[in-house]
Amino acid sequence: VTRTVISSASRHVLIGDDLPFVIIGERINPTGRKLLAEEMKAGDFSRVERDTLAQIEAGAQMLDVNAGIPLADEPAILAKTVQLVQSLTDLPLSIDSSIVEALEAGLAVYQGKALVNSVTGEDDRLERVLPLVKKYGAAVVAISNDETGISEDPDVRFSVAKRIVERAADHGIPREDVIVDPLLMPIGAMPTAGRQVFRILGRLRDELGVNSTCGASNVSFGLPNREGINGAFLTMAIASGLTSAITNPIAEGVRHAVMAADVLMGNDRDAARWIRQFRVAPPDGAAGGRRPNRRRGNGAGTGAAAIP
Amino acid sequence: VTRTVISSASRHVLIGDDLPFVIIGERINPTGRKLLAEEMKAGDFSRVERDTLAQIEAGAQMLDVNAGIPLADEPAILAKTVQLVQSLTDLPLSIDSSIVEALEAGLAVYQGKALVNSVTGEDDRLERVLPLVKKYGAAVVAISNDETGISEDPDVRFSVAKRIVERAADHGIPREDVIVDPLLMPIGAMPTAGRQVFRILGRLRDELGVNSTCGASNVSFGLPNREGINGAFLTMAIASGLTSAITNPIAEGVRHAVMAADVLMGNDRDAARWIRQFRVAPPDGAAGGRRPNRRRGNGAGTGAAAIP
Repeated sequence: VTRTVISSASRHVLIGDDLPFVIIGERINPTGRKLLAEEMKAGDFSRVERDTLAQIEAGAQMLDVNAGIPLADEPAILAKTVQLVQSLTDLPLSIDSSIVEALEAGLAVYQGKALVNSVTGEDDRLERVLPLVKKYGAAVVAISNDETGISEDPDVRFSVAKRIVERAADHGIPREDVIVDPLLMPIGAMPTAGRQVFRILGRLRDELGVNSTCGASNVSFGLPNREGINGAFLTMAIASGLTSAITNPIAEGVRHAVMAADVLMGNDRDAARWIRQFRVAPPDGAAGGRRPNRRRGNGAGTGAAAIP
Repeated sequence: VTRTVISSASRHVLIGDDLPFVIIGERINPTGRKLLAEEMKAGDFSRVERDTLAQIEAGAQMLDVNAGIPLADEPAILAKTVQLVQSLTDLPLSIDSSIVEALEAGLAVYQGKALVNSVTGEDDRLERVLPLVKKYGAAVVAISNDETGISEDPDVRFSVAKRIVERAADHGIPREDVIVDPLLMPIGAMPTAGRQVFRILGRLRDELGVNSTCGASNVSFGLPNREGINGAFLTMAIASGLTSAITNPIAEGVRHAVMAADVLMGNDRDAARWIRQFRVAPPDGAAGGRRPNRRRGNGAGTGAAAIP
């Protein structure tokens, strides 16, 4: 079993097929959030603080940090955001940018072993990002597209992922430090998007032996009841092999779906976390849904006795 | 693609990996329902009528009919129940008994092509049930256990299923008329139960090319928020290859999870049914959740325009 370790100065998270699913909170990201973008550019990080605390409260195990603001000094803003978030929480972070200089600025100030989000399969990207990942002892998200674009053939996307894993190895980055993102399209625009990703995930787990992640909210773009689609997608992807996702932990339906998937994969031992969440609370979980730290800090299965 | 046809006198249902998932309503079953058992034994079928109508209303595409009452004349009661249910609805039925004489009595009065539920892999069961299935031109649920019991090895269970499919072929029953039940155990008692079933389902689809079904409610036995576990299980099983389930259609969370899975498998064309259900109704679906016949009768994608 492949286990990926991501850490802050004082805490680590393990990602693996035999472990509870890891939710990487997606909220610290100004893309498509005009107000947040303007505030961050102007040096106002109050909303970043609130997003950080809300995602911790909702039970995120890691946080993604992105500072992609047009016409701004992204390296400086990303470094500042990383430092701010690390002053607020000991959750490990994913440092998210398409600009290599911003990734480096974030890595330079990061305390611990970060997840670099991301590298794609183009040669020039690989040759710029992988040395950085190695230099800072980080792990990296590998997105399965390359010069030829995003193939609709899941086996082509798998082979792109395989090539990135091999190139990472050439740079001294072990397989367990490459987390593959199979690239999820909106299902409303591409009805085969789900089956493609489920197939790639199965091959990543069974043949390539790597962990995986996914920008999960994308799948429901343009549809009503997005939370219903997102939750079902995640459970289906987990059954297929997905071991982490970059998504919104504040959506309760999604969080409960992931918790159920952990039970059904045998990764919530004795269903202890599920029982703790639901044995007193009503089915919608309102009373029990807001104690992520207690859930994490209290791992021994107090609820096991409720199983007949 | 393998498609199974089940029919009543005037209507048919198709089961297949490229089609919307089929829910077979499980409620007409006195097992564990003492009051219903007593009523049916005494000739009072008013509760059967109510269960029939409620399941149709909730959107079941087929209904399972079971009359397993200790010390009662099960063949006579099952035949009577089948006739009653067929007088109330044109949904195709699954005729459910462990007593061969009861299966035959039900088949003798059934109008259409029934689903026989079930045959297991023991030689004497196969030699008694398969000729009946052939005689009445029915389809059959094949449960993947045999003389040696229920193996915990999914590959052994797969090979039992394969043997039943071969024996059915010897009796002139084609592969598409055998629907395999991989046997789902409660996850609270057996943490590997989910992964076992997901693996068998994948092999049934990819290697054996048969449809599958599952008594889905069993998985959550003994756990709180059973609907949350059941819904997640079904979506994960659908991603793995499950094409139908015998379950409770009245549980709204389960029904919505299955609808989302249909979207994600590309089997709800243009997400038309999903959009129709949720574009006006609130996220809990309260306003739109009770019009199964309209949903079925109104297949063309009126909602497709809502996709950007």
